[in-house]
Amino acid sequence: MANIAKKVSWSGRGEDRGERTPLLNGTEDGKCNRQDIVRSRPKEIPHNEKLLSLKFESLDYDNSENQLFLEEERRMSHMSFRCLEINRWVICGLIGFFTGLIACMIDIAVERLAGCKYFVVKQNIEKFTELGGLSISLILWAVLNSAFVMVGAITVAFIEPIAAGSGIPQIKCYLNGVKIPRVVRLKTLVVKVFGVICSVAGGLAVGKEGPMIHSGAVVAAGVSQGRSTSLKKDFKMFEYFRRDTEKRDFVSAGAAAGVSAAFGAPVGGVLFSLEEGASFWNQMLTWRIFFASMVSSFTLNFFLSIYHGKTGQLSNPGLINFGSFDSDSLQYDLYEIPLFIIMGALGGILGALFNLLNNWLTMFRIRYIHRPCLQVMEAMLVAAVTATVSFAMIYFSNDCKPLGQDHTEEYPLQLFCADGEYNSMATAFFNTPERSVRSLFHNPPGTYNPVTLGVFALAYFLLAVWTYGLTVSAGVFIPSLLIGAAWGRLFGILMSVIDSKPSISGNPGKYALIGAAAQLGGIVRMTLSLTVILIEATGNVTYGFPIMLVLMTAKIVGDYFIEGLYDIHIKLQSVPFLHWEAPATSHWLTAREVMSSPVTCFNRVEKVGTIVDVLSNTSTNHNGFPVVTHTTEHDEPGKICGLILRSQLIVLLKHKVFVERASSRLIQRKLQLKDFRDAYPRFPPIQSIHVSQDERECMMDLTEFMNPTPYTVPQETSLPRVFKLFRALGLRHLVVVDDENRVVGLVTRKDLARYHMGKDGLEELHLAQT
Amino acid sequence: MANIAKKVSWSGRGEDRGERTPLLNGTEDGKCNRQDIVRSRPKEIPHNEKLLSLKFESLDYDNSENQLFLEEERRMSHMSFRCLEINRWVICGLIGFFTGLIACMIDIAVERLAGCKYFVVKQNIEKFTELGGLSISLILWAVLNSAFVMVGAITVAFIEPIAAGSGIPQIKCYLNGVKIPRVVRLKTLVVKVFGVICSVAGGLAVGKEGPMIHSGAVVAAGVSQGRSTSLKKDFKMFEYFRRDTEKRDFVSAGAAAGVSAAFGAPVGGVLFSLEEGASFWNQMLTWRIFFASMVSSFTLNFFLSIYHGKTGQLSNPGLINFGSFDSDSLQYDLYEIPLFIIMGALGGILGALFNLLNNWLTMFRIRYIHRPCLQVMEAMLVAAVTATVSFAMIYFSNDCKPLGQDHTEEYPLQLFCADGEYNSMATAFFNTPERSVRSLFHNPPGTYNPVTLGVFALAYFLLAVWTYGLTVSAGVFIPSLLIGAAWGRLFGILMSVIDSKPSISGNPGKYALIGAAAQLGGIVRMTLSLTVILIEATGNVTYGFPIMLVLMTAKIVGDYFIEGLYDIHIKLQSVPFLHWEAPATSHWLTAREVMSSPVTCFNRVEKVGTIVDVLSNTSTNHNGFPVVTHTTEHDEPGKICGLILRSQLIVLLKHKVFVERASSRLIQRKLQLKDFRDAYPRFPPIQSIHVSQDERECMMDLTEFMNPTPYTVPQETSLPRVFKLFRALGLRHLVVVDDENRVVGLVTRKDLARYHMGKDGLEELHLAQT
Repeated sequence: MANIAKKVSWSGRGEDRGERTPLLNGTEDGKCNRQDIVRSRPKEIPHNEKLLSLKFESLDYDNSENQLFLEEERRMSHMSFRCLEINRWVICGLIGFFTGLIACMIDIAVERLAGCKYFVVKQNIEKFTELGGLSISLILWAVLNSAFVMVGAITVAFIEPIAAGSGIPQIKCYLNGVKIPRVVRLKTLVVKVFGVICSVAGGLAVGKEGPMIHSGAVVAAGVSQGRSTSLKKDFKMFEYFRRDTEKRDFVSAGAAAGVSAAFGAPVGGVLFSLEEGASFWNQMLTWRIFFASMVSSFTLNFFLSIYHGKTGQLSNPGLINFGSFDSDSLQYDLYEIPLFIIMGALGGILGALFNLLNNWLTMFRIRYIHRPCLQVMEAMLVAAVTATVSFAMIYFSNDCKPLGQDHTEEYPLQLFCADGEYNSMATAFFNTPERSVRSLFHNPPGTYNPVTLGVFALAYFLLAVWTYGLTVSAGVFIPSLLIGAAWGRLFGILMSVIDSKPSISGNPGKYALIGAAAQLGGIVRMTLSLTVILIEATGNVTYGFPIMLVLMTAKIVGDYFIEGLYDIHIKLQSVPFLHWEAPATSHWLTAREVMSSPVTCFNRVEKVGTIVDVLSNTSTNHNGFPVVTHTTEHDEPGKICGLILRSQLIVLLKHKVFVERASSRLIQRKLQLKDFRDAYPRFPPIQSIHVSQDERECMMDLTEFMNPTPYTVPQETSLPRVFKLFRALGLRHLVVVDDENRVVGLVTRKDLARYHMGKDGLEELHLAQT
Repeated sequence: MANIAKKVSWSGRGEDRGERTPLLNGTEDGKCNRQDIVRSRPKEIPHNEKLLSLKFESLDYDNSENQLFLEEERRMSHMSFRCLEINRWVICGLIGFFTGLIACMIDIAVERLAGCKYFVVKQNIEKFTELGGLSISLILWAVLNSAFVMVGAITVAFIEPIAAGSGIPQIKCYLNGVKIPRVVRLKTLVVKVFGVICSVAGGLAVGKEGPMIHSGAVVAAGVSQGRSTSLKKDFKMFEYFRRDTEKRDFVSAGAAAGVSAAFGAPVGGVLFSLEEGASFWNQMLTWRIFFASMVSSFTLNFFLSIYHGKTGQLSNPGLINFGSFDSDSLQYDLYEIPLFIIMGALGGILGALFNLLNNWLTMFRIRYIHRPCLQVMEAMLVAAVTATVSFAMIYFSNDCKPLGQDHTEEYPLQLFCADGEYNSMATAFFNTPERSVRSLFHNPPGTYNPVTLGVFALAYFLLAVWTYGLTVSAGVFIPSLLIGAAWGRLFGILMSVIDSKPSISGNPGKYALIGAAAQLGGIVRMTLSLTVILIEATGNVTYGFPIMLVLMTAKIVGDYFIEGLYDIHIKLQSVPFLHWEAPATSHWLTAREVMSSPVTCFNRVEKVGTIVDVLSNTSTNHNGFPVVTHTTEHDEPGKICGLILRSQLIVLLKHKVFVERASSRLIQRKLQLKDFRDAYPRFPPIQSIHVSQDERECMMDLTEFMNPTPYTVPQETSLPRVFKLFRALGLRHLVVVDDENRVVGLVTRKDLARYHMGKDGLEELHLAQT
């Protein structure tokens, strides 16, 4: 009884295993320890980096090649495969098109709304500068900001909390093979787009680029399925693609299209998808991803050119436009490379500091700010503070610059400056962040006062730390670039004081670019894709080598202190994320130690009652079950002959595919793959399926539906070898067998994700049900 | 006896199988047919696209995780793994450095030699233009060209024939996992570098870029091993990396560094390596590849800047420099996109024609020109004809252009033009191909007469077709670009006649670029990496979208007619090349049909005599042997318990690791991984190992040395599933087992490469011993 009680206390949804959790039966060596530790802290705070949550399921990247599937594939002619391939290209084209369209919409909406806001505030400021009483302007500004942010935060907090943040950690997890609930739904997309418009227009220290990646992924998941489950609309198209394998491929194309639209970086998009997601490199898939990226960038470019009244002049490949760097004026000299490396190290340190502060803040939020109302209020508070800080900075800054012919400011604020001059702090604060970045890159030397830059960088740094993780849809790319550009330009100005070579002093914008790269690299720790994204965003390959050096330095330095921002957030969610390789020192672990056992198996022909009972058992909630030739309850395990998934069993039960009904099934339609596809991806829970007492006594023949050739490994296989197989093929279940092919255990994602390199060598994470 | 005679007639080296070839025992269903066909043409011409050669072995990308290996890994601390990782980075840096250095050397040597040649010929032409008797100049030119080419061809044909051509097909095969003999040796590198200098200086229609990729790969294979087997010099460094897995990873970095140095395209290099080679995408590996690429480009840039006397001004990132395109003048309009697509289709057709002609020519060469003397003579003939054609073109062209201030010609030929004018045909023919490409891209409108361009494109097309496949080291990239640039510019000029919009007529160089991309894409059929290479080489991302469209169109159109040039040459070599996926319609094949059987297995403890006999059997020459618990000769097969390689057995035999000597082995040193590494990669043949009659009666215990956990699949596994496992993990042997884990067959690379999509569906290639 005590045992059962314990079981219930550990109950939870969505485990990938077809076996008892090892937490409760510590008969094997080496398991008692873990189990004890876990048991000793059952009241662990739900989000903790030392835990692995069991609530996340895996995607089935491995095709279940059962008889139905093979029959279908064998029936298909060469031409049908051609058609499928063409369909894939069409879908990728559509993904690119819609992603570009959404990016365009966001861009126009933000520009309009922010334009209105700055216009109103500017007029107000101008009015009150003469009259006195600028505090009214401040209040107006703060109220406007808070109002925008409130609308965005309410939408996110109350309608779809998963739409908060940039969505990049979630997409990283999805591409890694973890099914994050509701992450690629239409509702999420709508909330995300609306939320990002509000938060950017609300003047928060955020960018609209990160959310584009999430948006692209949702578009891909939607378009590729040819239906919307939320809208209950089935276009009867692309039915072949209704499974995890195909869907994940398309989602990686969507993420790439998102990056491409955000930064005008199609190649960067492809590399982002590969760096963050795909473990299995496939040439055709990569080409399709590239195609989606190109179409997305092109669509955005085309529609923006119409919007700007220059139809067909394609000069806006992305949401953020760094402006064109002239290749001649931006040459760098060899002696500047050490300077760049120093900046990279600085970026790494500042990035680590950013991540550390944000980590603490996020843990604080998880503990204390989990009610939606509080979250909305915090967001509004941040919006108001951002406006206040900005206003104070502008107010107290007495850095006036002449308003030249070639100024790029959209809203130059005169304030207390003389006529024909404008406040230079306002160019940084009284502007959308994208424009500020561009000003820092391109404004001629002497535009900014060093003190202005320093204070701005500091203030914006703190604001950005506070902002990331709020319950609003927003990205961290642009704030990072902005912070980096500010201190980078400052660095350039200081260097030109020390050494007045023209290549340095003539070009603080160059240092702004390097600083931006360093800061961004220090925060997010991507290297390859980020290098390419920055190269493409600047439109110039000259800076490839320095940017790469800077990003690598930033990564190495930053990694010394703390992980990248996205990884921190993934860890705080306790997601079972699989890295690229098993920890280096894990060769002494074998499948025997890693696997979970004993395994719940089914017979080839199994009693319906048994199946229903197993599926209904909320204390295990297994998702995959080895099928064996015979199991004698208390005897040795049976020989493996297949693997069947919970989702397949549910469909079988729903359609009552019982042996006893075989005669009547001759009249009925035979179960087809289509039935499984129709139920995908929201398979009904077992509780919703009614099985009568009579039916419980029937038998089900699983032969036709199980995957007859699941991947297996012997018990002696080392962890790195198991890991490699698992990761390379995107598996969900890997059966461990003995010499006689008898099932002895099952390895799932959590069993592998549990081991990671800590400071003192290999560490093992604990499993938690939340 | 008849059977044995047959066996001998089929004998050959280097099969990957641990079983009899199925050719000779057609007991199973479905095998008789293939066997009969093969048997009916035993005198098949050695190189044929309908055959798969058995002479190529596979690389062992899968680690043999035997006890020795695991013990070593388990002994290693966290710090040792860190050190290894740092070593990998250092090696990649060195690879980049040396590759860049070699590229620099080639560039300078070619420039110097070609400079001398053109100077001499120019002076001679100028002299005889006045005197009359230009035929003497022609002879001088032809003799100079032939002399250069003769030296190069002799080196290649007599010293190292594998150094012929661009080397890209060979590197593609290597990265695909096929061990091409001698392809990554030092001697090959030396011959390659010397050969490419000669052939480019000899004025052939070739480029020096392709061979850089091969050179980079050889550098990588050499540096990463820390020794040179040819020079018998062991630096005692990097011993850990002496196995196929690590070496192949480094070679992919080397190939990327080569691309990077050739085109100044580090990202393109990374993508080339991935597109052509890696099946398993690994983030850390990709970063290292990127690092090697960056260093290579930087090194070349740096040393060239010193050579050009502008130390530190880094403006030559690659061997070929397309010159900087100004982004403003090169904007394209929407209505030009259909034009670009038409050009892409044209490129596809012309590329297919190129490949078709070259395919015929190559088959002719394989049949009739296989003696080195003939090969050298053909190369000299081509050199003389190239000079003659060029001369004739220049001579009969009466297209004079004024010699402006801003002309970019290095050697303007006046010939019969008025003073202050020069012959425009000479800018194309009397120049290194790189310079000609640049002129076509950048010379202002009106520089070239349309007829000149048309005749030049045609002549160069034919010359390039004839040249590719000669026994000289040379690449096809630059000639393709040159042909394409010529007809592309012609296309642009024609378009400007039809439509005089300034964006068209003002910029024939734009069309030259698109034409170059189309022609190159039509010949080599790469898309992703080529797009990026061209973007990086032009230094401008504006053209990304059109270049991608053009390359895709060229690929689709070209693929309709014939495969890409590299694939043709790989096929003609009958290499068992594994594509990305199994043919689409192969789901009806299972491992049972695909595998070879019966398999030669060993017992865990096996008699030395048996092992020696099996290894010595030249009719089979197996490379991998499943180890089973017990084999009863005529009974059922044994249960699998491991897999051992020929190379491992050879080392064991060499060190006489026999059970009977175990007592004396206590005195002797225990066999270590180091012994295997020292023997790698040139394991001695079995014939060189002397085993006495007494020793033949000893026993060998394989337990410690075999891989105890080889990957296995059940017999019912479908071919696509087998293929995916094999390709994703880079396997060499995949054991097929029955329900009881008994060995029933073995799948190797050739078993999978055999099936491919033909015009009428799935086709099966025949196996040949040559």
